[in-house]
Amino acid sequence: MNLDYIKPDEWKIIEEGFDKENITASESIFSIGNGAMGQRANFEEHYSGETFQGSYIGGIYYPDKTRVGWWKNGYPEYFAKVLNAPNWIGIDVKINGKQLDLNTCRVIDFSRELNMKNGVLTRSFIAEFDDGDSVKIQSTRFLSMTSTEVGVIKYSVTPINFKGEIEFSPYLDAGIINEDSNYDEFFWEILDKIETIDAGFILSKTLKTGFLVCTAMKVELVLNDYIVNIDKESQITDKKITNTYKTEVNSGDTFSIVKYGGYTQGMNHPDAELLNVSKRRLNEAVELGFDALLEKQNKAWNKIWDTADIMISGDIKAQQAIRFNIFQLNQTYSGDDSRLNIGPKGFTGEKYGGSTYWDTEAYCIPFYMSTKDKDVAKNLLIYRYNQLDKAIENAEKLGFSKGAALYPMVTMNGEECHNEWEITFEEIHRNGAMVYAIYNYVNYTGDKDYIASHGMEVIIAIARFWSQRATFSKDKDQFVILGVTGPNEYENNVNNNWYTNYLAKWCLEYALENIEFLKDQFPEDFVRIAEKVKFNETETQTWENVAAKMYFPYSEKHGVYLQQDGFLDKELIPADQLHKSERPINQKWSWDRILRSPYIKQADVLQGFYFFENLFDKDVLEKHFDFYEPLTVHESSLSPCVHSILASKLERTEKAYEMYLRTSRLDLDDYNHEVHEGLHITSMAGTWLSIVQGFGGMRNFNNTLSFDPTIPKNWKSYSFKIKYRDHTIKVFKNHEGCKFYNESDTPIDIIVSNQQVTIQNKDLVVL
Amino acid sequence: MNLDYIKPDEWKIIEEGFDKENITASESIFSIGNGAMGQRANFEEHYSGETFQGSYIGGIYYPDKTRVGWWKNGYPEYFAKVLNAPNWIGIDVKINGKQLDLNTCRVIDFSRELNMKNGVLTRSFIAEFDDGDSVKIQSTRFLSMTSTEVGVIKYSVTPINFKGEIEFSPYLDAGIINEDSNYDEFFWEILDKIETIDAGFILSKTLKTGFLVCTAMKVELVLNDYIVNIDKESQITDKKITNTYKTEVNSGDTFSIVKYGGYTQGMNHPDAELLNVSKRRLNEAVELGFDALLEKQNKAWNKIWDTADIMISGDIKAQQAIRFNIFQLNQTYSGDDSRLNIGPKGFTGEKYGGSTYWDTEAYCIPFYMSTKDKDVAKNLLIYRYNQLDKAIENAEKLGFSKGAALYPMVTMNGEECHNEWEITFEEIHRNGAMVYAIYNYVNYTGDKDYIASHGMEVIIAIARFWSQRATFSKDKDQFVILGVTGPNEYENNVNNNWYTNYLAKWCLEYALENIEFLKDQFPEDFVRIAEKVKFNETETQTWENVAAKMYFPYSEKHGVYLQQDGFLDKELIPADQLHKSERPINQKWSWDRILRSPYIKQADVLQGFYFFENLFDKDVLEKHFDFYEPLTVHESSLSPCVHSILASKLERTEKAYEMYLRTSRLDLDDYNHEVHEGLHITSMAGTWLSIVQGFGGMRNFNNTLSFDPTIPKNWKSYSFKIKYRDHTIKVFKNHEGCKFYNESDTPIDIIVSNQQVTIQNKDLVVL
Repeated sequence: MNLDYIKPDEWKIIEEGFDKENITASESIFSIGNGAMGQRANFEEHYSGETFQGSYIGGIYYPDKTRVGWWKNGYPEYFAKVLNAPNWIGIDVKINGKQLDLNTCRVIDFSRELNMKNGVLTRSFIAEFDDGDSVKIQSTRFLSMTSTEVGVIKYSVTPINFKGEIEFSPYLDAGIINEDSNYDEFFWEILDKIETIDAGFILSKTLKTGFLVCTAMKVELVLNDYIVNIDKESQITDKKITNTYKTEVNSGDTFSIVKYGGYTQGMNHPDAELLNVSKRRLNEAVELGFDALLEKQNKAWNKIWDTADIMISGDIKAQQAIRFNIFQLNQTYSGDDSRLNIGPKGFTGEKYGGSTYWDTEAYCIPFYMSTKDKDVAKNLLIYRYNQLDKAIENAEKLGFSKGAALYPMVTMNGEECHNEWEITFEEIHRNGAMVYAIYNYVNYTGDKDYIASHGMEVIIAIARFWSQRATFSKDKDQFVILGVTGPNEYENNVNNNWYTNYLAKWCLEYALENIEFLKDQFPEDFVRIAEKVKFNETETQTWENVAAKMYFPYSEKHGVYLQQDGFLDKELIPADQLHKSERPINQKWSWDRILRSPYIKQADVLQGFYFFENLFDKDVLEKHFDFYEPLTVHESSLSPCVHSILASKLERTEKAYEMYLRTSRLDLDDYNHEVHEGLHITSMAGTWLSIVQGFGGMRNFNNTLSFDPTIPKNWKSYSFKIKYRDHTIKVFKNHEGCKFYNESDTPIDIIVSNQQVTIQNKDLVVL
Repeated sequence: MNLDYIKPDEWKIIEEGFDKENITASESIFSIGNGAMGQRANFEEHYSGETFQGSYIGGIYYPDKTRVGWWKNGYPEYFAKVLNAPNWIGIDVKINGKQLDLNTCRVIDFSRELNMKNGVLTRSFIAEFDDGDSVKIQSTRFLSMTSTEVGVIKYSVTPINFKGEIEFSPYLDAGIINEDSNYDEFFWEILDKIETIDAGFILSKTLKTGFLVCTAMKVELVLNDYIVNIDKESQITDKKITNTYKTEVNSGDTFSIVKYGGYTQGMNHPDAELLNVSKRRLNEAVELGFDALLEKQNKAWNKIWDTADIMISGDIKAQQAIRFNIFQLNQTYSGDDSRLNIGPKGFTGEKYGGSTYWDTEAYCIPFYMSTKDKDVAKNLLIYRYNQLDKAIENAEKLGFSKGAALYPMVTMNGEECHNEWEITFEEIHRNGAMVYAIYNYVNYTGDKDYIASHGMEVIIAIARFWSQRATFSKDKDQFVILGVTGPNEYENNVNNNWYTNYLAKWCLEYALENIEFLKDQFPEDFVRIAEKVKFNETETQTWENVAAKMYFPYSEKHGVYLQQDGFLDKELIPADQLHKSERPINQKWSWDRILRSPYIKQADVLQGFYFFENLFDKDVLEKHFDFYEPLTVHESSLSPCVHSILASKLERTEKAYEMYLRTSRLDLDDYNHEVHEGLHITSMAGTWLSIVQGFGGMRNFNNTLSFDPTIPKNWKSYSFKIKYRDHTIKVFKNHEGCKFYNESDTPIDIIVSNQQVTIQNKDLVVL
């Protein structure tokens, strides 16, 4: 595979020239989505080479039977997986009876573009057959951001040097199998195939979970801009509907098919109405027509970009990368449905099974909180609130009691979807991230009602978990937390991971604080919740005791908290002294060697310093950064952003920039040779954080927004916008200084580099 | 399933009455084997109920594709598995056209016996059909201990109340599938099916490994003790040869089939000769005839029992149990082939994949060493010696270098057959057991030549491993061993498991000692080996340094070595305070809960005190026993024997007896509801050790055998024999005292309860 074959451009992702080696990578990179559905950038026409066909529908999953080598108690029997859904984009093409297949034709002037400004994917090329026939192909495709059950494709064929027959066979194929199926099972039941004059529908149902999905298509045929009527030949097989349209065309004529398609599904409509809704959606789309749909698409994306865009001047690859990340985050999750979440691969692949990780709480929520209305972040919190019962069940299964909750490591419907004991059972810090996200949300938005309406129940259940999970060590006369895996998954089953212990203590204290807050401010809610969760006042004594007596491993010699007990027994050789043939260690070393090494996969102690920066002095942060950064190998896509932000805080802009580079083009440049499996969606939020919280130094404490902007030396300038409560602030930074524009109708006081600054409404401050 | 349905008897295993629930358990318990092959006690005739068909051939394995949830670097791609082999015991039976099937007939007076005196399995019952026809069935079966490629079955039918047709259809079935196949694959290729007048042969080959096996049968038909000639109808299908013999018999007549069968295989003969050897073996067997073969069988087992038997008076269940254990160990491994080893399930099941664990070195070698000629234990050592290259490869794969060896956790051919990282990569103490076994062998037999001829290479390669595996901790200024799993598998990835660290230090010192020994006593061998393994004198400095500076976790407060770093942080609640609904914890608790508990699956620190008892004072042992015994849950079949031996040493006979009971009838009483999967063969050696080393107090240090006999209060007496160098000593103990008989032609000095005693040749000493 060629690294770096994507052409730099401010707004577009561009591939030029046809290279079969890049097909599956490009299928990931050029993926499109609209929050409700998404698909890999598979070709419409048949392709006989290596390809990974993928279409996905938000919320639709299948519990696949778990595969393990050696079963351990507590493992889930089934894993919920993102389901590969019926394919509605397919259009087989024949030219004078010859199948168009880029794997067998000669392909000239191939180019593919994804316009991030409006989410439109285009492709054009000339295909030359063995007999000399040449055709020019042009395709345009997008998934509507305004009518999210619909997508549209315009696919045009122009014979260059012959007169002859062009045949389009648009189809629906419901015979799709998950790439990551554990036992190669087919996850769907086909219920019905319906055909009308110009449309086709397949009703199918997921096995076990019983999600009903109607996959639909409707076509128009266009000859040189005029709609034409052509009789179809129809073929219906077991899992597929194919319609075939043929016509004779002259050299230079353009014969096009406009295919409208998409899904309606049972989470959004009564099952019995799916077919009718599908028909209606397609009719509406056809009535509007391709151009009007596209116009709406442009407007919808304009609105998103208006607040979400980050402009970088002087570094076109950085500009392209940050827009790609913002674009993908918006394709994956639009925030209006609290049943959905942000999968680590979004709609671009299947790896990692379930859809929701602690990535959402730790990285994604701040992004959505600052670029969208507060309801979006709230919906992400409510997603977890709605899964609280399952988290309590999950904890019970592992031996906890009395309403303690352990949120799963990976989930779709609230149930655990992972089965490595060292992760599933032990990477419990994720539970703290749930509470941290509530704190973060309330702190940022000021929406304290949320604690009363939803947050408190989660906070209590998690406080209960930590107080049970801590063990009183007689030997230490303190509470310890044994047998955990921290964010650094290159350590398993360790004792007293500092980050976990700190988060546990913080969660307990936050629970105590909010109990008091509720009693004081929302006494009725307090009574209601106390009754609901059978809260007992004596619990707070336990929480206080565990929090007060929590043990933290610390080295006097180094003046740092230790990642875990025994960390100093390791050979602390900086990672940059490893020979490059040993990197990445997760590919070159056996697991045991990794485990006994000091190398850190992703921010662990430093993740704590990121979350709780305000609770430590800067020189303490610096000591920890200097101790841990050299040992960190950043072999998780979620690692460099945290180090980048902390480096910015420590005014080490070069280091911050180095770390920033490691995430921002991770997928575009395919550093880890894995982009063909899908994109790293959640880590894209980390890239955004590296700029806004990192270089921009954006923080908010005590209900005040603050900035401390720095700029990498090879950028000319950058700017971003922040939604903060009732205000939208635009921040511009170059090497001369910075500017803040207040878009809102009321003034705002902010802090810039420790100075208080008032920006009047619709006014600019230059500093 | 009924526990405890096996009738007590001194020499027999007896099942009376037919209970379908017990079928698969009895198939395990009544298994027979002769060291070269073995089989579960499947019925000869068709059985339509639940059954687990199993026939196994020593040394024949298949590398099954590994199944894991989440791949980790270093995992083996394939697992060698004991192969379920073609079935030669099958005889379908029809009575007046009705199939004999115990699942559908009425079964009266069913009884099954396994005579441990001679390894003969018999079964008798009356089967009554719906139409009232009743037949008496009698079957007798054994696998020859003298001609190990042959087994024989005598199967008789006697109509009780009718005259009619009896039909026997003996068959060979090569279409056998492993119960534990990861992907339900068929592991054999059928090469040829050959039929002669009275015999049938199937040549088949294992896929991938290419082991050729010839499965054979030859039959005689007997009517009321007279051989009769009956024409057969023959049916040959894809993977099966069936011959059918019918005759009309009168009520009271007995129609019998004698089926000779078995395997020849490519490890023992050239592939091209297998068929001829098979023919020859069957002809020899038929020529001898059933009765003469049986006579030879009796003699062979008599010889085994003469030295191996343990007699217990006053406790028939204990007597039955210890004989069952000795019997099974002898069925599984006869010791004349260094390519074979003792699988944890022997020839009785498939669980645990490969065949060789450290059980062999830690538990089985002492048994075989004391009950057989020294060549048997030596063959077990040579088995590992021959796999040294693979152990070096295995270590290289995990990142070790310069000829360091890591023996696999489970193996068939020297390659690793296990893939839980916490076991495969981390349970490295097994490597120490390899060296301990060499020490144990040399110490017991006095065969110091073995060090020069084989042992030293293994000792050096393992010393190299430990010296690389230890990490120098600057913090402690000592060597630590990070990331291990000790014998107690209820702790994973711990630091400084005392047992492992101690064993590592001991291995290094033993290596240094033997380097000196070789230089002094076998200088030519030393030069040869040093050249072969590229030994460098500077290595010894490293070994000395690591051994001298090895760290051991210790508690001043408790006066004990700690199982691992941080052990005192656990809640040290004795296991007997757990509610019985929580036991066994490996079934009731999630894995993480087990890991952070203090509970010990099997002897860990105490395993070290067992191995190195002579290096610690008795009061130190006592402290450790009192600290660890209450925390030990003995959820491994290999645990109680060690505690039993140590309890005897501490003169706690009641505790020793309690522990003894937990292993001796483990399978006969099916404590863990798993006997249907096969027997716990290797732990049976532990039971023997509990008596001989435990109650008998047998030790040998400084080339002297010593005893310190005690007796459980509910036994009247017990006796056992020990082969020790040129002597065979019979030990008898009752509540009045003990007697020692020297069977040999020369006197021997032994120590009994710290007193030196001389026993003249062929003389008895009463104490």
